[in-house]
Amino acid sequence: MTLSLLTLDTPAALIDEARMMRNIHLMQARMNALGVRLRPHVKTSKSEAVIRRQLAAGAQGVTVSTLQEAEACFALGITDVLYAVTIAPARLEQVSTLRRQGCRLGILTDSLAGAQAIVAAGQRYDEVFEVWLEIDCDGHRAGLQPDDPRLVQIAELLSAGGMRLAGVLTHAGSSYALDDPQALQALAEQERACCVAAAERLRAQGLACPQVSIGSTPTALSALDLTGVTEVRAGVYVFQDLVMHNVGICQAEDLALSVLTTVIGHQVEKGWLLVDAGWMALSRDRGTQRQRRDFGYGQVCTLDGRWLEGALLTGANQEHGIVSFAGGCPDDLEQRFPVGSRLRILPNHACATGGQFERYHAVDASGAVTPWSRLHGR
Amino acid sequence: MTLSLLTLDTPAALIDEARMMRNIHLMQARMNALGVRLRPHVKTSKSEAVIRRQLAAGAQGVTVSTLQEAEACFALGITDVLYAVTIAPARLEQVSTLRRQGCRLGILTDSLAGAQAIVAAGQRYDEVFEVWLEIDCDGHRAGLQPDDPRLVQIAELLSAGGMRLAGVLTHAGSSYALDDPQALQALAEQERACCVAAAERLRAQGLACPQVSIGSTPTALSALDLTGVTEVRAGVYVFQDLVMHNVGICQAEDLALSVLTTVIGHQVEKGWLLVDAGWMALSRDRGTQRQRRDFGYGQVCTLDGRWLEGALLTGANQEHGIVSFAGGCPDDLEQRFPVGSRLRILPNHACATGGQFERYHAVDASGAVTPWSRLHGR
Repeated sequence: MTLSLLTLDTPAALIDEARMMRNIHLMQARMNALGVRLRPHVKTSKSEAVIRRQLAAGAQGVTVSTLQEAEACFALGITDVLYAVTIAPARLEQVSTLRRQGCRLGILTDSLAGAQAIVAAGQRYDEVFEVWLEIDCDGHRAGLQPDDPRLVQIAELLSAGGMRLAGVLTHAGSSYALDDPQALQALAEQERACCVAAAERLRAQGLACPQVSIGSTPTALSALDLTGVTEVRAGVYVFQDLVMHNVGICQAEDLALSVLTTVIGHQVEKGWLLVDAGWMALSRDRGTQRQRRDFGYGQVCTLDGRWLEGALLTGANQEHGIVSFAGGCPDDLEQRFPVGSRLRILPNHACATGGQFERYHAVDASGAVTPWSRLHGR
Repeated sequence: MTLSLLTLDTPAALIDEARMMRNIHLMQARMNALGVRLRPHVKTSKSEAVIRRQLAAGAQGVTVSTLQEAEACFALGITDVLYAVTIAPARLEQVSTLRRQGCRLGILTDSLAGAQAIVAAGQRYDEVFEVWLEIDCDGHRAGLQPDDPRLVQIAELLSAGGMRLAGVLTHAGSSYALDDPQALQALAEQERACCVAAAERLRAQGLACPQVSIGSTPTALSALDLTGVTEVRAGVYVFQDLVMHNVGICQAEDLALSVLTTVIGHQVEKGWLLVDAGWMALSRDRGTQRQRRDFGYGQVCTLDGRWLEGALLTGANQEHGIVSFAGGCPDDLEQRFPVGSRLRILPNHACATGGQFERYHAVDASGAVTPWSRLHGR
């Protein structure tokens, strides 16, 4: 049976292919213009069909957040993989196995303890691990500040232990909290300058630091100059979402991921629609809660993707969603949105919503629907 | 290789089997004492091993929130299945298929439009659907109030159309917002009285209403009398969680689900531990945010399950968690929780956290670890 938005089982995660391709080409063109490689973060889509389109558009290598993603990408023939979460020592055996199979898998550390574990595992498995050092450019999570004396100590320890220093890496995760173009440009410059400074510090000590890897979708789409940077990592740009819309780095018509849902009931007195997309579909992500515009659990659209202004998914249980209308409920609620009719919901956070599904359904410009599987495993 | 909490890949969803069995027996004993059947909601665990233990302890039939759960339960040999989400007309063909295969699958409606669709599908598929009518006992979601004239109209429409009226059903979902035993008892009585009133209203019209199904974990564990009720549905009681702990219907030592995680770094100046459990493991559920005690994304425990008082997962990215210490960070943070050491995190909402994993790992009283798969599909 031909798949269609009218017959697909709901809830379903839809990808608007034309919008996604526009997002892919826009980011790639920016990176080309700025003279850096783009290494997309596959944790957003975890989908072969999406990753192949990113690579075909010019991306080089991938970023992953789990070793299962690394394995799955390597199984697709991608050999340049950067595992951008600080390595837990117990994972080094699996990293070594993947490297022996031909995967050029880079790992990350930000501590002397981590570096010692890497050197010890390198000796144990007779492996020269390719190690990136994590830099903290905005205080939001992990990493060392560029002037932290441990940075050089860790690099020296790894180098003396026979490991390969791949470079320095940072992620300006605090960019998600901004919504002003100038502040975003300033943070993008801070991310760049901070990571380049760390690289120069290492090089001044005679240590190798070939790569400088930075990135987050908001800073990547805001940076004016990336001097000294060799590659940019970004993930959510491929789908964009309501959080990114609030950050101001995309428009409503760029949001490529939505959840198809069916109306299952009404509470007319309350002005509610009940739909079959709850948090099991949208996720519990409330990323717009503290932004300039709170979209609840998502922005409700018609089946053909038109925003229903003021209609938000304001409540989410496991398999129930409650849609309410900020501007006042339509008088003809039951007639306009009858039981069995279909809507689309734009998510706050595409990575989290994608993570709730086993597969996507891509919708092309002709309206044809194709299932796109997600990578096996976590 | 024998599985152990020291070698299991992290993050992992652990079930403390002794605690879970205590939860199962406690709820079953209460329902036996109150003279009602227990029909557990399998959406919490979605796990054969868990469901079989609930049935072995005396539960009769299951409640599901998707048709995929219904199919999976039927494949396990469970024939008494209640799909407790208002039916979307497009699902009636699949319901009919399951019923023809021998699954006594009940469906739910709360609207004339829904009832009309059921009757039409009954004629189309030559099927006598077993239909439950949803009652709204606390205004929190779907259902009709017992005195709504549509209740009798819907029942008459279904009956005249040759469908079987199974009974009335309600869920006091607002109980999650309470934390006072007397208020919980009062809501449990409201849930009971409201649903029984709906049944009596139908019976007074000469309509069949053999069953009266109510339930939520907080009201089921608070009810003093269930006169007129035939069955209770509850889900999260099997694992319990921090939200239920705040509601006051379980103790810390009843929480059976936790996430095993590995320490991957520190930010000593900030007093942070970085761990490999983010929202992809815990979910984005912040159910304790508006309760009397906010646990962030989870309560941190030692590997053997002891609460680290004041240690909460206060930040969650996709595969990173940030642990901070409310009472002040230990001076020996890096020594006490070295890179590679392991912790357990109790979740806000067990259904949401379970939903992030493909399988559980059950830990029995001897410490032995056994993988328990989740049901295939959504």
